[in-house]
Amino acid sequence: MQPAEASEGRVMLTDDELGAIDAWWRAANYLSAGQIYLRANPLLRRPLDREDIKPRLLGHWGTSPGLNFCYAHLNRVIAAHDLDMIYVLGPGHGGPAAVANAWLEGTYSEVYPHVSQDAAGMERLFRQFSYPGGIPSHVAPETPGSIHEGGELGYSLAHAYGAAFDNPDLIVACVVGDGEAETGPLATSWHSTKFIDPVGDGAVLPILHLNGYKIANPAVLARIPEEELVALLEGYGHRPILVSGDDPAKMHGLMAAALDEAIEEISEIRRQARHAGATGRPRWPMIVLRTPKGWTGPKEVDGLPVEGTWRAHQVPLAGVRENPAHLAQLEAWLASYRPEELFDTDGRPRTGVLATPPAGDRRMSANPHANGGLLLRDLELPGFRTYAVEVDAPGTTSTEPTRVLGAYLRDVIAANPDSFRITGPDETASNRLSAVFEATDRAWQAETLATDDHLGPHGHVMEVLSEHLCQGWLEGYLLTGRHGLFNSYEAFIHIVDAMFNQHAKWLETTRKIPWRRPVASLNYLLSSHVWRQDHNGFTHQDPGFLDVVMNKKPEIVRVYLPPDANTLLSVADHCLRSRDYVNVIVAGKQPALDWLSMDEAVPHCTRGIGIWDWASTDDGTEPDVVLACAGDITTLETLAAADLLRRHFPDLRVRVINVVDLMRLQPDTEHPHGLPDAEFDALFTTDRPVIFAFHGYPYLIHRLTYRRNGHHNIHVRGYKEEGTTTTPFDMVMLNDLDRFHLVMDVIDRVPGLGSRAAGVRQRMADARLRARAHTREHGEDDPEISGWTWPHGER
Amino acid sequence: MQPAEASEGRVMLTDDELGAIDAWWRAANYLSAGQIYLRANPLLRRPLDREDIKPRLLGHWGTSPGLNFCYAHLNRVIAAHDLDMIYVLGPGHGGPAAVANAWLEGTYSEVYPHVSQDAAGMERLFRQFSYPGGIPSHVAPETPGSIHEGGELGYSLAHAYGAAFDNPDLIVACVVGDGEAETGPLATSWHSTKFIDPVGDGAVLPILHLNGYKIANPAVLARIPEEELVALLEGYGHRPILVSGDDPAKMHGLMAAALDEAIEEISEIRRQARHAGATGRPRWPMIVLRTPKGWTGPKEVDGLPVEGTWRAHQVPLAGVRENPAHLAQLEAWLASYRPEELFDTDGRPRTGVLATPPAGDRRMSANPHANGGLLLRDLELPGFRTYAVEVDAPGTTSTEPTRVLGAYLRDVIAANPDSFRITGPDETASNRLSAVFEATDRAWQAETLATDDHLGPHGHVMEVLSEHLCQGWLEGYLLTGRHGLFNSYEAFIHIVDAMFNQHAKWLETTRKIPWRRPVASLNYLLSSHVWRQDHNGFTHQDPGFLDVVMNKKPEIVRVYLPPDANTLLSVADHCLRSRDYVNVIVAGKQPALDWLSMDEAVPHCTRGIGIWDWASTDDGTEPDVVLACAGDITTLETLAAADLLRRHFPDLRVRVINVVDLMRLQPDTEHPHGLPDAEFDALFTTDRPVIFAFHGYPYLIHRLTYRRNGHHNIHVRGYKEEGTTTTPFDMVMLNDLDRFHLVMDVIDRVPGLGSRAAGVRQRMADARLRARAHTREHGEDDPEISGWTWPHGER
Repeated sequence: MQPAEASEGRVMLTDDELGAIDAWWRAANYLSAGQIYLRANPLLRRPLDREDIKPRLLGHWGTSPGLNFCYAHLNRVIAAHDLDMIYVLGPGHGGPAAVANAWLEGTYSEVYPHVSQDAAGMERLFRQFSYPGGIPSHVAPETPGSIHEGGELGYSLAHAYGAAFDNPDLIVACVVGDGEAETGPLATSWHSTKFIDPVGDGAVLPILHLNGYKIANPAVLARIPEEELVALLEGYGHRPILVSGDDPAKMHGLMAAALDEAIEEISEIRRQARHAGATGRPRWPMIVLRTPKGWTGPKEVDGLPVEGTWRAHQVPLAGVRENPAHLAQLEAWLASYRPEELFDTDGRPRTGVLATPPAGDRRMSANPHANGGLLLRDLELPGFRTYAVEVDAPGTTSTEPTRVLGAYLRDVIAANPDSFRITGPDETASNRLSAVFEATDRAWQAETLATDDHLGPHGHVMEVLSEHLCQGWLEGYLLTGRHGLFNSYEAFIHIVDAMFNQHAKWLETTRKIPWRRPVASLNYLLSSHVWRQDHNGFTHQDPGFLDVVMNKKPEIVRVYLPPDANTLLSVADHCLRSRDYVNVIVAGKQPALDWLSMDEAVPHCTRGIGIWDWASTDDGTEPDVVLACAGDITTLETLAAADLLRRHFPDLRVRVINVVDLMRLQPDTEHPHGLPDAEFDALFTTDRPVIFAFHGYPYLIHRLTYRRNGHHNIHVRGYKEEGTTTTPFDMVMLNDLDRFHLVMDVIDRVPGLGSRAAGVRQRMADARLRARAHTREHGEDDPEISGWTWPHGER
Repeated sequence: MQPAEASEGRVMLTDDELGAIDAWWRAANYLSAGQIYLRANPLLRRPLDREDIKPRLLGHWGTSPGLNFCYAHLNRVIAAHDLDMIYVLGPGHGGPAAVANAWLEGTYSEVYPHVSQDAAGMERLFRQFSYPGGIPSHVAPETPGSIHEGGELGYSLAHAYGAAFDNPDLIVACVVGDGEAETGPLATSWHSTKFIDPVGDGAVLPILHLNGYKIANPAVLARIPEEELVALLEGYGHRPILVSGDDPAKMHGLMAAALDEAIEEISEIRRQARHAGATGRPRWPMIVLRTPKGWTGPKEVDGLPVEGTWRAHQVPLAGVRENPAHLAQLEAWLASYRPEELFDTDGRPRTGVLATPPAGDRRMSANPHANGGLLLRDLELPGFRTYAVEVDAPGTTSTEPTRVLGAYLRDVIAANPDSFRITGPDETASNRLSAVFEATDRAWQAETLATDDHLGPHGHVMEVLSEHLCQGWLEGYLLTGRHGLFNSYEAFIHIVDAMFNQHAKWLETTRKIPWRRPVASLNYLLSSHVWRQDHNGFTHQDPGFLDVVMNKKPEIVRVYLPPDANTLLSVADHCLRSRDYVNVIVAGKQPALDWLSMDEAVPHCTRGIGIWDWASTDDGTEPDVVLACAGDITTLETLAAADLLRRHFPDLRVRVINVVDLMRLQPDTEHPHGLPDAEFDALFTTDRPVIFAFHGYPYLIHRLTYRRNGHHNIHVRGYKEEGTTTTPFDMVMLNDLDRFHLVMDVIDRVPGLGSRAAGVRQRMADARLRARAHTREHGEDDPEISGWTWPHGER
């Protein structure tokens, strides 16, 4: 296995073909530079004047010519082989490039008719770029043909693989910038080669673009010896094809040859795997493209080298409005693309420019995979009620909620074999979703041993110890019109905080773009949560992801805390039907008491919040105190506290409220799920103490309710960053969230409990000491505590 | 360059030497298994009884024997070559291994005298492990010899490099688990080879431990062909030495030979670089160790294979208390280590076991580098007042705050050439800290070109496009007793949310461990913040890191928002002197008005919050309204609003409060910096409207102040997730945080403004429309707005 140096001779392109590719490239480069600089005179029909120049020069020129070069060449192979291909631009700050090509292909004017494919449209195209009220400077949701935002770097290759899964005819060309290649997520994304199936999946064609510099620094992969680079890429499982140079004419030949070779190899891999019975992991081709940064731009400015250096990263000529020499240099640069050959007198691309490109949906800017909502089909969902746990009386039987969910997910997978995937960092089984392995395998293309468990080349459970890959793959899968679920430890989902933020921003933006069709929601299942990581210790105890989620727009974020198996089923069904949201479900995997029958669970989840009458003693009248809870363990402790209160204060009117949908706590002016104040007041009262046992950091409840009338009465217990390796009940005690402490909180806040109050309070404090002593002595919780069940039946 | 297969023959170890290594290994394995299972009968002096077994079996056996194997062999080379070495355990869930070796070395009993090195101590050692009130199940701050927590995976190698920088005599042995190797951060950490200096830095010796399985899945790197693995590691810049097998006797020979070879290569690299004038990046050795998971543990349990499979990951015999066959199997397993040969009748390790190990500070468990506070020296800090900007009148001159800071940091670097580093993802220059390059270079060991800027092999600015590496390197550097600063875009610091969480938890825990000495604080400088990413667009606009930070314990988190250059200097000096904190500084890099002279800045920063009398019109009496601000842009808009209010409502008593230290807002019961209620009330009043212009998401201010008496009067403006590519003033307008809107907020909340109020309100609304129209027309902000200065002088 040797890396190939692409050779010019291999593809015999005619002069016309080469000319058309070069014309497209020059046109795209012209349009890219024009977007950065011009607000008028787009075709240089008169000498460039300072008034033609934008007052504020923004944009990234450095990467744009390379992105355009790839685009022009990919167009040729798409047309030649009628390929179904999309283009992921890792260096997405090269926004001008993506926009330029979409405009040349006509797509831009189709979705934005005011940016017509003529001189007036070209002027608008230039003017709007990085302009107030215009379009972003980077590749963005507004850019046709993109599923990948060009802001935070590192996720292009994971997105590309996500798009390719279950799209057997698709090729995803993915430009990886040499800057981005230094990020962790990208560095591990190369190993996606061990997970993509040449039979059932499409192909990813990575193009590692070495232009040498990041912002001010060289890029690591551009500065290691070629043999080391080749070893690295072969180590990732690729066969790299090298294309290197700066002479456009030569480079066109080399790149055309490299792409033909890569496409041929992909076809051969598919043929072998699909028709010739080949098994085993193929060595997928990839391209290493080494070109100067800011290629074809100014070679020198003010005596300093620019092309091929870090100075070409953004705007290579910065003083155009003030400095006539810079203005002249810009004019010469733009004229070097010979715009008069590229655009007719009306500003339309000439036929020579448009000789090679694909048409219709084959245009990468118009390929429906890059607007996945167009392809989205509803999931076939089994009736979730079928999987219900029988609950004759609340709080008397136990179930592992995620195990029940696993059976449901098994059948979701079975009914949707090509459009539903589960990702996770090797926790699907430990999260007790193992039933899914009755319907599918774990995706795996590397070597297998007899001792392996449910590995298979076509598996639809994607397990890799990289939350970044789990998230990136799933994002790519969803954005191309499919469905899925990411299951993870609650603490470690913070690893993808930044990716969540970016995906949420994508959704926030696409909701305002009519031609972007809704996609399936991104669903998180956070099991192995803070209260049941007593065995793994402090590092595994962090419920703060909810706080990160809540900073994003209310229109797109949803947080669910189903307290038992049936509520989890109901919530999961709801989430899998939803669109354009991020749904976070926090649910337990350990055996937990069943509170609601399915007939009770469905309306409770539909309302998202409600009084549990059977647990309350207020008889529908004004309570003396409200016990509220959100989360499974917190619900358990709250109900156990309600039990204690019945025993010790039989006359106390206690109302128990359970919250499944956290968004209900916000005012309806803040979130579409928010309760109107009147309804909130009817539940929580405006003047009675509320003891709120919350799954996460307590501040979140204050943040959601600070505008409520009764907010000053709400006392929240939650995780206060206390933990270690200990027992489950010790965990809640460490955070003052245990049943005994909740009763103490009630005693401290409800006036008029009478003479017994002090004594009961002392008994609670003693019970805490006894519980701790038992734990220390026996190494496990007092069975009277851990075995507690609800003794009161229905009221 | 060929990978080496370690060969037995190379090192001629005597039988005694081999015997001692094997004895140590067996002892450590015995102690590891003992911790997982036993609460009594630690030396098996009587037949094992079910009552000897812990009721709850927790711990990770699978990785432990491999970690012990490395430890035993590293001890031999340490002793043989008098090496200064520490040990980073990537698979830190193998907590029993780290503890076992520390106990064998005597360190454990030195720091925890009750866990003595005898039978009673061994029983305590076993009993405390993963036990309530005992020690965590993973490697943790409580574990002597560790700078690396074994919770979240992915950061071992970055920590190892951080420890090695500027420690020229140190070797950091770093075991990388094959699970961890799949994470993004680890995958890019290998490229640290391009940043470590063979002259001024120590060495990292990675030991990639392939035991084949993660939790339920195989590991990718264990399942690719060896030639592919070797290519990958060579591609990372290493020369791998392969050690593979399962026969202990053979493996001892192979590992000893491999380690001798690696140590010899490191010595030779150092000699060449330090004494023979070699330049260029060396190919550092590393070891690939392939052994069965759960090596030497049960081969089969209940007829299913365990050793060498995923079933060995945690507790291989789970039913010991209930199942007599399991109990017998455990006893046989423990006996297979021949404890009677290893421990004398008092339970002390016999001299045969202790033949090889290093002594004193050479013990990896006692090496002071792994308790960096022992080595920490105060920074030599130049007087920060020297760098002050002259401010004759507030708000009339402009400065780029980070540029001023850059000069200060330059001199910090110059004065502390071996103990201060700046990390960042290629933004040091763009964050305008470029003065530092007058004192040092960017660290760079790869190829250089003439067009490169300030690269050098000994540079102390570490730039790589991986926030994970920036954070991981700096953590390793700090934990081994040095100082530093991480500068980053505000939005993308979310990339390391999870790493911040884990480091914060480390600090939270170490504060309770007396023998852990305080280390320098982790300092973040977030420039390129949300309000000045108007040119980069929505993806770059996210101030939510502050919310993540605030979830950690008040004892260790600090957030500073200096509004100008002099306050930034004062804050930076304070942060660089602090210990055991995480300090987050948000500061601008764009030209911004100077508000305070240094004589004013110092007391203002010391108080952290204060009334700006010169901007207020309440004459020290009760104000009609309070304008509060935290952040540079928000301070600008607030002062501009105060100016407008003076013009339009000359009789209105306005109080302007600036907050530098966000923690001051919390009650003093919640945070050590918190203001007592009386002081808070004196500043903010309890009954006047407060319009609070906040840098971040507005909820954070509510979260900090919800317990304050006047909280219901606080109206917060902040980032509400609105943004795109636009102008700076349009950004604040999009979020209703502009001067005009703040005036409207005042009008809406202050009663009795008289008949002019409605008219002024309309003028403000019109001013917003005009500002937006100007921006749209001209592509930049109205110069009257962007050029505004404070016109009132001192009062």
